[in-house]
Amino acid sequence: MKTLAVDTSTMMATCALLDEDRLLGEFSLNQDMSHSENLVPMIKNMLDNLKFKIEDVDIFGVATGPGSFTGLRIGIATVKAFAHVFDKPVVGVSTLEGLAFNFPCDNGFIVPMIDARRNRVYSGVYKRIDGKLKKIVDPTIMEVEELLTILRDEYDYIMINGNGTLVYKDIILNVLKDKVNIAPVNLNSCRASSIGELAFLKYKEGKRDNYYDLVPNYLRESQAQRELRKRDR
Amino acid sequence: MKTLAVDTSTMMATCALLDEDRLLGEFSLNQDMSHSENLVPMIKNMLDNLKFKIEDVDIFGVATGPGSFTGLRIGIATVKAFAHVFDKPVVGVSTLEGLAFNFPCDNGFIVPMIDARRNRVYSGVYKRIDGKLKKIVDPTIMEVEELLTILRDEYDYIMINGNGTLVYKDIILNVLKDKVNIAPVNLNSCRASSIGELAFLKYKEGKRDNYYDLVPNYLRESQAQRELRKRDR
Repeated sequence: MKTLAVDTSTMMATCALLDEDRLLGEFSLNQDMSHSENLVPMIKNMLDNLKFKIEDVDIFGVATGPGSFTGLRIGIATVKAFAHVFDKPVVGVSTLEGLAFNFPCDNGFIVPMIDARRNRVYSGVYKRIDGKLKKIVDPTIMEVEELLTILRDEYDYIMINGNGTLVYKDIILNVLKDKVNIAPVNLNSCRASSIGELAFLKYKEGKRDNYYDLVPNYLRESQAQRELRKRDR
Repeated sequence: MKTLAVDTSTMMATCALLDEDRLLGEFSLNQDMSHSENLVPMIKNMLDNLKFKIEDVDIFGVATGPGSFTGLRIGIATVKAFAHVFDKPVVGVSTLEGLAFNFPCDNGFIVPMIDARRNRVYSGVYKRIDGKLKKIVDPTIMEVEELLTILRDEYDYIMINGNGTLVYKDIILNVLKDKVNIAPVNLNSCRASSIGELAFLKYKEGKRDNYYDLVPNYLRESQAQRELRKRDR
């Protein structure tokens, strides 16, 4: 059973094809938000090389956010279009859960951080229990300092990844000192292979999203929404 | 400082470009050993998309084995050619160390396994100590059952990845039961991003390989070598 997954929540555009417990291919490019031009060619290139067609895909997985508003819209719109044309199931996966899934370790708390600008991050708390990733604290948007203070005071050992670690590395190390393990480069970015594996696991548990209704989870209002709300007052 | 890394030790051909603590791109294809046709086009495709040229690369990293003899020769020959043309340093990294690096966890022993056919695997034992990956047992080739018996009797908690887990999954779970954590799909294969990060870390510590002398580490004789030895007798 083939799963094609996509994650365009951050500057990293990434797509992967999985066949249950095997990774068939993955293509990831960090490229200044030109996802709308590049995502479909990346998928086509990967599938062509693997000698698969888009109609061979059984399940589509996609990262639903939080992250870049435009990035999320591109990834979700692309996957919805494919799923619609071939009438295949689509499964949305939290971008933060996908990042947390990069850590296979069961000895601490996993805290993915996506930069949300102006000293804020999108973040949540996860933990591997009996080999399964469980959500401990719901995804939220928070000031970095506030989040790090909570982590320092309430958690023993923390593993962090995501592009927030690149922007806020100094303060993370400063506050959390030796109780933090920042991911190596290879596990620090969003990976479509993580989204694909989670989508397949959720599909096996019965989860399906509707390709009409699936929407990004922005976790905060966009500039356009804020302005609309101001005008409505 | 840009590192271009390649790993063709297994069926997974994988290349990545890193800029120190950032992954710029990675392209991985599991494709029945057509590495000689596909590796250079994959690298070119990734670099073109990222708007980099091969001459922008500062360090070349390559997986030196153990693994497929032909695969290793293709990866190493490609990287030596690039390094020679542009007179850039090349750093060889053990394929097993690269696989072990996919596990960022510090609460157990990491045992990568590459299928060596006929119920044997290439394997070694690693551990993360103070955030650094240390080799505990040198890479070797061994019968799967013998290796698993040693792991069961001498180690508390073991994390395993590599294509050996796909071939020998049942016996691994049977012998090691709940003291083993088999990697999720996204961390189970060789990743050029792991080879690239290790190459960069080794480079910073002063390691350089010579692009004339760098050779694969097969860990056992090839069919051709065995036959030659027979004839010599």
